Amino acid sequence: MSDASRVIRARAFRWDGVPVTAYKESGALFRDVTRQTLLGEGAGEDGLSFLTRYFEVQPGGWSTLERHEHPHTVVVLRGRGRVVLGDVTHDIAPYDVVYVAPGAVHQFRTTTDEPLGFLCIVDRERDRPVPVSR
Amino acid sequence: MSDASRVIRARAFRWDGVPVTAYKESGALFRDVTRQTLLGEGAGEDGLSFLTRYFEVQPGGWSTLERHEHPHTVVVLRGRGRVVLGDVTHDIAPYDVVYVAPGAVHQFRTTTDEPLGFLCIVDRERDRPVPVSR
Repeated sequence: MSDASRVIRARAFRWDGVPVTAYKESGALFRDVTRQTLLGEGAGEDGLSFLTRYFEVQPGGWSTLERHEHPHTVVVLRGRGRVVLGDVTHDIAPYDVVYVAPGAVHQFRTTTDEPLGFLCIVDRERDRPVPVSR
Repeated sequence: MSDASRVIRARAFRWDGVPVTAYKESGALFRDVTRQTLLGEGAGEDGLSFLTRYFEVQPGGWSTLERHEHPHTVVVLRGRGRVVLGDVTHDIAPYDVVYVAPGAVHQFRTTTDEPLGFLCIVDRERDRPVPVSR
């Protein structure tokens, strides 16, 4: 097969050939979060206008409270937690879908002793997140 | 909250307020496949340039063998099956990621007595699939 089509095998929420990287390059506004970019940045994937990333928040951890103009599509894969969406906090569990609309303040947290893992799909071209303090 | 941000709750691979619809409007080239569009077509979701759909293939079923110029990003959520990608067939299981590159012939099948369920993310604006016969 000469095209870039392929299957990326999953093993315990890690994927073959996909590195586990830092959530952000720097910052102290989050705790114990990792990022795996599953599709959209690899060779032959230029035709994808969106990136599919998997984030994992370890027990006791949280992502940055932030906002940006690009929307997020999130699908929870493992664990349980809470998501802040604007002024409201929602419980989340596997397969729940979260829509983060443009400009909405949001943050993900674990609430159990299991990691909270979720897919997050975004446009390849997008604005940078801005941290929010409360 | 005045924005469209929200959580869409999952219950046994169905989602609150999301109808289970036909895989395609018509055709006899597939068997026992349903579609649920989770995000991208609802009110306030105009800012999403991509759609997140969940497809489920019942035991004994298969999707159309087809090709199109837009790429597919697939993440398996339940069941086991096989995907045709060009000239190769791969086994797939939960959380495996499948990249269907532009123009690649592809088809999904179940191989057990459990439904095969997967997310499939595509550009909102895309070309129509063309069935392939072999």
